[in-house]
Order: sequence, then C-alpha cells, then structure tokens
Amino acid sequence: MPLEVVICRRVRYGETDQMGVAYYANYLTWFEIGRTEFCRELGRPYSFWEKEGIFLPVVEAYCRYKCPALYDDEILIRTSITSLKKYSLQFQCTVAKKYDGKVIAEGWTRHGIVDRDGKLIKGANLFMDWVKSVIENDNGGGVTVE
Amino acid sequence: MPLEVVICRRVRYGETDQMGVAYYANYLTWFEIGRTEFCRELGRPYSFWEKEGIFLPVVEAYCRYKCPALYDDEILIRTSITSLKKYSLQFQCTVAKKYDGKVIAEGWTRHGIVDRDGKLIKGANLFMDWVKSVIENDNGGGVTVE
Amino acid sequence: MPLEVVICRRVRYGETDQMGVAYYANYLTWFEIGRTEFCRELGRPYSFWEKEGIFLPVVEAYCRYKCPALYDDEILIRTSITSLKKYSLQFQCTVAKKYDGKVIAEGWTRHGIVDRDGKLIKGANLFMDWVKSVIENDNGGGVTVE
Amino acid sequence: MPLEVVICRRVRYGETDQMGVAYYANYLTWFEIGRTEFCRELGRPYSFWEKEGIFLPVVEAYCRYKCPALYDDEILIRTSITSLKKYSLQFQCTVAKKYDGKVIAEGWTRHGIVDRDGKLIKGANLFMDWVKSVIENDNGGGVTVE
Repeated sequence: MPLEVVICRRVRYGETDQMGVAYYANYLTWFEIGRTEFCRELGRPYSFWEKEGIFLPVVEAYCRYKCPALYDDEILIRTSITSLKKYSLQFQCTVAKKYDGKVIAEGWTRHGIVDRDGKLIKGANLFMDWVKSVIENDNGGGVTVE
Repeated sequence: MPLEVVICRRVRYGETDQMGVAYYANYLTWFEIGRTEFCRELGRPYSFWEKEGIFLPVVEAYCRYKCPALYDDEILIRTSITSLKKYSLQFQCTVAKKYDGKVIAEGWTRHGIVDRDGKLIKGANLFMDWVKSVIENDNGGGVTVE
Repeated sequence: MPLEVVICRRVRYGETDQMGVAYYANYLTWFEIGRTEFCRELGRPYSFWEKEGIFLPVVEAYCRYKCPALYDDEILIRTSITSLKKYSLQFQCTVAKKYDGKVIAEGWTRHGIVDRDGKLIKGANLFMDWVKSVIENDNGGGVTVE
Repeated sequence: MPLEVVICRRVRYGETDQMGVAYYANYLTWFEIGRTEFCRELGRPYSFWEKEGIFLPVVEAYCRYKCPALYDDEILIRTSITSLKKYSLQFQCTVAKKYDGKVIAEGWTRHGIVDRDGKLIKGANLFMDWVKSVIENDNGGGVTVE
C-alpha cells in the first residue's frame, strides 16, 4: 500500500444541494484538501513548492460517487501518490464516512509539474526528489514510477 | 455526431484561483450548466423531470484540462448525450474559448436515473422515452444505446 | 462578553482568486462553519434543529474585510450570539490569523426562526428556550434580548 | 436614479442547498457578475482596470435576503454605483425574479481603489475619471460624490 494521509472534516451546509446531499463538484475541493495535507504531513506544504517556483496544475480529474454525503457528516479523506511519471504525478483519493467507514467516493487527479510560466519542468528538480523520497520511505507497493 | 447544445458564458472572478486561472472544480459546475441547457433546449428542463419524480445524480465524472481559462474569458460549453444504458446515461461536455475555438477542457458525467428515494427506476419511464426520442431525432452517430 | 466558540481552519487553494487572496464570498461560508460549530459546541447541532422542524434562514448578512487571508493561512473563526429578538437572532463572527491574532474580517448574520414551510415560528419553542439558556449561562454582557 | 445595468441569469443546481433554495453566499458572487457587467457595459471591463494596475478589493459587503431564489429561476441583477469617495466606491445591487419582478435580495459592496501592491491610489487616476464620467452621464440623482 502506498503511504496514505488521512484527514477528517465535516460536510458544510453550503456544500449540499436541493437533493439534500453534497453537490458533486465539492468532492474535487475535498481532494484538494487531501493533497494539501498530504504534502504538509510529509514535510513540504504545497505553499513551499509554489515559493520554490514549482506548480502542480490539475491536468485530469476523475471521481466515482458511491453513496451520498449528507450535511454535517464527518468524512475521512485518504490521499496517496499512486503514480509518478517524467512530468506528472497522480494523487489517489478516497472519501469515506467516519462513522462506519463506508466509502462515499473514490477518485484521482493527475498534475503536471510546471514552473511559474506554466512550462513543464524537465530534468532533475527539488519536487521530484522529494516525491521519490516520499515513495521510497513507504514500501512503494502501490506506486508506479516510470 | 450526436445532437449538441452550445451555450456561452464568462469566467467569473471568484472562479479564478491564485494561479490566475479558473479553479478545476468549477469545470464540473460548467458541465452542470451545459446539461441544464441541453435538457431545456430539447424541450424538457431538468426541473420538469424532478417534478415528475425523476432525478439524475452524478455517479461518475471525468475532466481533462487542456489549457487554462482566464477571468472574463468567454467560453463555449458544448453538451451532448453520448451513451444510454438501462439505468444510466452519459453527458459529454467540451469547453472551448469563444475567441478562437481552442478547446480548454473535455469531460463527461455519468448519471443514474433514480426516483425520489434514490432507487434506480427500472422499466419504461417518461425520461427514457424522452432521451430516446432526442437521440432518434439526430442521426445517432455518436450515441451508444444498450 | 457573550459566550464565544472558536474554531480553526485553513484557507483552501480554491478559495483564493487571481488577486492571490481569499475571495470575498467565502467569508460567508466561514461564518456558516462558525455557526455550525457554535451550535454543536453548545450541545445542539444545527442538524438537530432541522430534524425538529426548526430552520434558520439568513435574512441579512454583513462583512467588513480588514486584511487579506492567503492560501493555507490558519484562521480562527470566533462566533457568538449577539442579539435575540422575537422571531430572529444574530450571530457575530470574527475571523483572525492564528499566527498573530490579526483580525482579517468581522461580520454578522441575522436569521429568521422558521418552520419547514418557511413560516416564522411564533410563541414558545424549543430553539428559543435553548438560545435563552445559552445566553443565561454566560453573563449575557454582549447580548441584546428583546 | 443612478445609471443601472441589468443582467439576467439562472440559478444553478449547485447553488441550491438542502433547504431547496439558493445558498446565501452565492448572492455575493451574483453581485460580482453585476459589477463586472456594469463596468463592461459602460465601456471599461474590470479586466481592463486590472491591466492598468487598478484593483477594487471588496472592503465591505451587505445583503438583505427578502425571498428565496429557486433552482433554474431566472433572476435579474441590477447594478449601479451609489457612492464615490476619495479612495473607495460603492456598488448597489438588487436581485429580482424575472417572472414577476419580485425583489429577492438587495445589497451593496464597498471597494477600495488600490494598486498592484494593495496600496490606496491617492490623487487623480484613470479609474476615478471614468467613474466620474459615468456618474455625470446619468443625472446623478442617486449618487453621493465626496
């Protein structure tokens, strides 16, 4: 299993829609919280990388919605890095109810690794070194490195 | 080509983030606008279906981000139905700059067809009949019906 | 001083705009988080009141923005009830940087007390009793009760 | 009456909450759309001002919610400038149902006039000249100029 960071938050009222459940676009903002805390937990907040001139724009996002999240539900957001390619990486995200562990949604985002001008960063760089060290520190079981 | 509905809107200030581009979760709200106007344009607003007791919760969503959308950009949102299965259907969505037609993002959402209690509606129903008539009225070239 | 509940959260990436600061509408969602945790902390989650058929729609909102909140800033949201009238109540909210206590914004929301149909609840009711007990348990210094 | 710009849009599904009405923070994003189109209609899109190095951060916002806005409602957003001070200006905003003209909400935002570094712009500047010309072109009835 790849290294995983878990955080807990509650569904806000404004995140619900008239169906009485969390609106589907909010899950992508939850994934963002997961990625942010993943980076912080492993020693390098995302704000650190932006200061270093390294940006991670989302190039692809996917989510499968399995059961609804309700107002005030405590949800667990589990995040890991599941793939590292030359110029991109992939975060995997699972959202579950804290109460009974039931999975609400699963998805992933793929990110380019770019500089301040939006150009892909080719060659060795601080961020890649850090991600590799993160992956090596776990057993790397679920991570594809190319 | 499946029947397509195109709408135009502008990127709002609050939709941008500190990278200076539209934040990625907003694309799912744009897809929602596309679906809403698709249904209206073809004669049955989504609000009509909810009044009939037919709901279309998103069960899967995907987006590929190709180039950034900037504040105040006019964007075209093209929506079509690309797949109809027994209890679900899929909307395809393309977002392009109005100015030069450049594609900003492409994606799709898959929706269950459920009743007020969230149960899949099995057997013939008004909504399915309508979708089929929509599909038949175009040449059906790009739509998979199972 | 009226009884105050303080919570801490971080500014999300998607909450920033291209000026590089938290977009102004997000403060109202932060106020919502403050109210939610105020109610929970004092023993009655807002979800409890909705189950009892008591709703608190916002009828007025005000915010004064004093200095910008940046991505990943830890912010403290302080919430109290500052006024109780026959059919409405007012929450006061202050947002400050955790780091140095600097106030980022101050505001308030006024809420009607209504039933499931949106009608004002007149006469004695569970919610009013609870709010009054909350106010009495602090010294009531800053709360106007009419 | 001060010069007014009116735009029309629909309430999105994601803007509703579980009470079945538009969530209160969305009104501030509607006010933003109103301001943006006010500036464009009067010849100077807000993006033009940012390119000129002039920014209008919100320093105060107020909204009074009069009746709910529902999913897919067509709403009219009326915007005008109602006050111009040395370093700030105020937009007034009214949101009404298109169907019957019923006012849903009224509010205003006050904005500082600042440069790229967030410093107040003192002395004559392009933006002030433009606002004054806007105000003079209408009869100025409702605008306070100090």
